[in-house]
Amino acid sequence: MLSVPEARAAILAALAPRPATRVPLAEACGRCLSEPAVATVDSPPFAKAKMDGYATNAAECGSSHVTLTVVEEIPAGAVPTRSVGPGECAKIMTGAPLPDGADVVIPVECSERIVDRVSLSPPPAVRPGSCVMARGAAVRWGETLIAAGEPLTPAAIGLLAEHGFDPVAVTPKLRVAVLSTGDEVVPASLPPGPGQIRDANGPLLCAAIAAAGALPLPLGLAGDDRDALTAKVRDGLNADVLLISGGVSMGDYDLVPGVLADCGVRRVFHKINVKPGKPLWFGVTENDRGPTAVFGLPGNPVSSLTGFELFVRPALRRLGGWSDCEPAPLSATLTEAIANRGDRPLYRPVRLTDGPAGLSAEPVRWAGSGDLRGAADANGAALIPSESQLAAGDRVDAIRWAGCG
Amino acid sequence: MLSVPEARAAILAALAPRPATRVPLAEACGRCLSEPAVATVDSPPFAKAKMDGYATNAAECGSSHVTLTVVEEIPAGAVPTRSVGPGECAKIMTGAPLPDGADVVIPVECSERIVDRVSLSPPPAVRPGSCVMARGAAVRWGETLIAAGEPLTPAAIGLLAEHGFDPVAVTPKLRVAVLSTGDEVVPASLPPGPGQIRDANGPLLCAAIAAAGALPLPLGLAGDDRDALTAKVRDGLNADVLLISGGVSMGDYDLVPGVLADCGVRRVFHKINVKPGKPLWFGVTENDRGPTAVFGLPGNPVSSLTGFELFVRPALRRLGGWSDCEPAPLSATLTEAIANRGDRPLYRPVRLTDGPAGLSAEPVRWAGSGDLRGAADANGAALIPSESQLAAGDRVDAIRWAGCG
Repeated sequence: MLSVPEARAAILAALAPRPATRVPLAEACGRCLSEPAVATVDSPPFAKAKMDGYATNAAECGSSHVTLTVVEEIPAGAVPTRSVGPGECAKIMTGAPLPDGADVVIPVECSERIVDRVSLSPPPAVRPGSCVMARGAAVRWGETLIAAGEPLTPAAIGLLAEHGFDPVAVTPKLRVAVLSTGDEVVPASLPPGPGQIRDANGPLLCAAIAAAGALPLPLGLAGDDRDALTAKVRDGLNADVLLISGGVSMGDYDLVPGVLADCGVRRVFHKINVKPGKPLWFGVTENDRGPTAVFGLPGNPVSSLTGFELFVRPALRRLGGWSDCEPAPLSATLTEAIANRGDRPLYRPVRLTDGPAGLSAEPVRWAGSGDLRGAADANGAALIPSESQLAAGDRVDAIRWAGCG
Repeated sequence: MLSVPEARAAILAALAPRPATRVPLAEACGRCLSEPAVATVDSPPFAKAKMDGYATNAAECGSSHVTLTVVEEIPAGAVPTRSVGPGECAKIMTGAPLPDGADVVIPVECSERIVDRVSLSPPPAVRPGSCVMARGAAVRWGETLIAAGEPLTPAAIGLLAEHGFDPVAVTPKLRVAVLSTGDEVVPASLPPGPGQIRDANGPLLCAAIAAAGALPLPLGLAGDDRDALTAKVRDGLNADVLLISGGVSMGDYDLVPGVLADCGVRRVFHKINVKPGKPLWFGVTENDRGPTAVFGLPGNPVSSLTGFELFVRPALRRLGGWSDCEPAPLSATLTEAIANRGDRPLYRPVRLTDGPAGLSAEPVRWAGSGDLRGAADANGAALIPSESQLAAGDRVDAIRWAGCG
């Protein structure tokens, strides 16, 4: 049985980034550039005033009382029409280009204006460059701005806008189909009958997919009926990723592996040495648009969530062109003792909290992989090795879950 | 001049949560319940099998060799039709209800089936409840599942689905209008002329708004023209929040405060003791739909981003009904020395990284509030007190920015 790192490596090796697509910059946040973005302009493109005031030469401020003639006014968006000579200045607004001859801006609050003259008494202490942002101070034309493979942040979107990358070539938004199986499952909006439960996995997985930056495509429910399941699976194989919850164990009613085989999905592995989530099934199928990744997730909702975080989210990163697809490795301090008497590594729901002493992991009340209330109190999971007894204060590896702040 | 905490307190005091709206559960992730959700069922609603196997009574497993008669088969979604008596068992599937008389499930792999009998040789060590999830083990009917004021996570969405909260009453998705001002600014998709720059603030703020879970409504650009600006502002006041970047200083061309006053927006404060972002303007206006919050953000893009994180995001939380609206307080270790020679507290862009020794803050190369490349290399900011010199290894308060993983 594969370990968690082995299973993840097998998933990442079976998948490749989707080809780039050009989208409006407004749709690009959270996605990756398909190639590095290179500066198209110096930034700023001209020496510019950092404050409203008077542009002049630093040498003018040498004596104890200075009076300068205002030769023009340069609002932001305008260009100077003449240079500033000895004894002269230009009134200038924040963001406007400095005129030739000027190398400082005297803030307006340090000056006294009388008609077309400005009196500085005393003149402020300035050095060449005071209150001026030099051309190219932030970025030089041709420098690399943003590497491929890093998800774009709001600041990166602003930087791309500054350099005119609108539209921009990024990996496409991934479409993830979600199918819940099992004769016992009814939609969340209906009352369950005897022996039935409402579908928690579908809404949970759709929310996690959206929180991970992809587009959920809910396929609804399929009972334990081979034909109905096959039809839904064929529909789901048009997506980039298909998630099926339930039906992946070895029981007589666990139809999913057989149906996936019939639909031409090549099995990469089935079962992982982890709790919860051991029966996880992973395979790949090719279609016109490239490979579709297929995950059969266990039916218990916290097993599904754990499988999503450990395996599906890294797969989404891989397809989305991220250079680093692994879950961010966290180290946290347990707030109380916790045991794992089982023979598989346990991803135990915890409440992760940042504090002055670092990250702490507080085990939530949790009754096992069917207990969504415990999972809803948590925002991540701590890795408790098999057959281990950890004490309060022990360090554990941990992961944060998607959509938990 | 207000401090950052004073300004934030003034903002939060001026605003109140938006009234609840009922939405499909699929749209509720990241939003807050308007009232606590109370369990509508026991979870699980019946004692259920945690594995495929044979349901029987633990007392049957006392001897060294046991043979049981299989009296029926209970798939998930079905209900038992009879009880299990001495020497009897029922074949049962994961998730199915236990029959009366049974209190354990013997996993199928511990058994040998011969026609209608099952042989356990040796019988596994079981206690009453083995491989069974008791009725109500996770949740009892009437217990509080999720408090109001906590943003809903994917696991919480699953939990609400389990209890039939579809649709669900949550605070509405907030609509945030974004307007960039200044005669020097052109859209990101156009080449700037002499003295001009492309609009970075609009795309940056729209991305930050979406990353914070709200809906950006881009209003485009307004030059330094009173009538054009007034028309755009009136349009933006139909949103829940209006963000205007640029034009909020004291210069001759800084029209925003005057236009806002003309539009009936009541000023709460103007200017904050912080760098970058000192000229931030905040006010409120009432309309039919409740108050609209208006922020005038400084024109430099990193000033706008800082103002967004310190003030706008808490305001969105307040309007969105979060019980805790403050930025999550982080403590990080500086990786290198950093000085703040200014007289205002500095929110310095840094790269925050989780590690075995806790959170570290690495100052990025940064040329000031006009330098978006530095901000794009960062994922948060460290608070450097005024007139201070910090060394590598010193602890600093820090915040994470929205949309930075």
